[in-house]
Amino acid sequence: MTRPAALIFDVFGTVVDWRTGVAGEVARAFAAKGRSVDPFAFADAWRGQYQPAMTEIRSGRREYVALDVLHRENLERTLAEFSLTGVLDESEKDALNRAWEKLPAWPDAVPGLTRLGRDYLIAACSNGSIALMSRLARHARLPWHAILGAEIAGNYKPASAVYLKSCAALALPPDRVMMVAAHNDDLRAAAGCGLKTAFVVRPREYGKSQKADAAPDGPWNITASDFGNLAEKLMP
Amino acid sequence: MTRPAALIFDVFGTVVDWRTGVAGEVARAFAAKGRSVDPFAFADAWRGQYQPAMTEIRSGRREYVALDVLHRENLERTLAEFSLTGVLDESEKDALNRAWEKLPAWPDAVPGLTRLGRDYLIAACSNGSIALMSRLARHARLPWHAILGAEIAGNYKPASAVYLKSCAALALPPDRVMMVAAHNDDLRAAAGCGLKTAFVVRPREYGKSQKADAAPDGPWNITASDFGNLAEKLMP
Repeated sequence: MTRPAALIFDVFGTVVDWRTGVAGEVARAFAAKGRSVDPFAFADAWRGQYQPAMTEIRSGRREYVALDVLHRENLERTLAEFSLTGVLDESEKDALNRAWEKLPAWPDAVPGLTRLGRDYLIAACSNGSIALMSRLARHARLPWHAILGAEIAGNYKPASAVYLKSCAALALPPDRVMMVAAHNDDLRAAAGCGLKTAFVVRPREYGKSQKADAAPDGPWNITASDFGNLAEKLMP
Repeated sequence: MTRPAALIFDVFGTVVDWRTGVAGEVARAFAAKGRSVDPFAFADAWRGQYQPAMTEIRSGRREYVALDVLHRENLERTLAEFSLTGVLDESEKDALNRAWEKLPAWPDAVPGLTRLGRDYLIAACSNGSIALMSRLARHARLPWHAILGAEIAGNYKPASAVYLKSCAALALPPDRVMMVAAHNDDLRAAAGCGLKTAFVVRPREYGKSQKADAAPDGPWNITASDFGNLAEKLMP
């Protein structure tokens, strides 16, 4: 493999532990109201609305809106599903929606990104908006050199435009860029656009009973156990 | 003044010392060819082509192209002006054009940005492209949370779209965002869009004989002697 010049990263699940972070904010929000909720079940249901909401945009049936807007709509649906409509007022729901800006990084992510950033351009290539990703970068101290991804393409992964416009924004051809993700589907789409690929195993993204994405299922250039291992494998 | 939520920064001259950086690369490039050139005069002439080149785009006479392209065209003109056409081959000219990706930060910039980044979103709002700004962030270790500016607007400062689209990308109204620059014209345009403003004095951007922008000449919200001083004035 020729060395890439830049690494672009999936963020939710790959760099940060969205499930633990969202569940924590959910637990706090409803404890303040004296309501008992399974916070992990709520987080899973909220995240479960993610793909169908983006499908509307990828299909062209709906114009691009930022993920923050989709998350807020999906929160309403999830509250209804848990029979919690009316428990939070509008500003409390807005505050809970900001859970996605306050997610914890996996413990190896910041040290690994810091090492990788010395030798490579590193950028977020997430479905999160610039507004969301920049706040998350500040919160979790993610040392990105740039925020790329859905917003600069006006579409959502795995649409090709997101990978290709992220490469173009770095003024690099796709084969000089490596997509890093814990999700095989994300890497399959990136590889289809000509990017190099690295799979990082995140066996607890969905909790202890996770089955999907437990192992690489494609011919990815690199498989790594965490970001430290990825940095070792990419040492110049 | 109500506190802003985000600070967006001019970069060339405000955060990094483009003149010293470019002159160093110019000196190296021509020393390797055994040619004697005044590197600061060359840097000043190269930078002197900056505003006229952008005027073509701001006026609508030319479609948006990245600053890297304008820099490369301006390099040709500057080489001709110094009777140096033909001294460098195409790949050597491309390499010299990358001088703009390797500029040194002013000594107070990184410590100041690091302090400010704890309490505020901080982002580049430069006329440089994402490709240029992300490489410069890596080189000079600028701890941005996002790269905004010309490329996300498809136009060049001081066009209003650059300030307004940068605020929109952060999902903030203009009055929650402060533009930080060493250039009064940049702040005048930002203030006209409703942003807050901070002037940081950079009396040596153009060398010892600098006259322009030696002092603030508008009703800016803050004037600071350097980024440490700016951080003190913005302490929560």
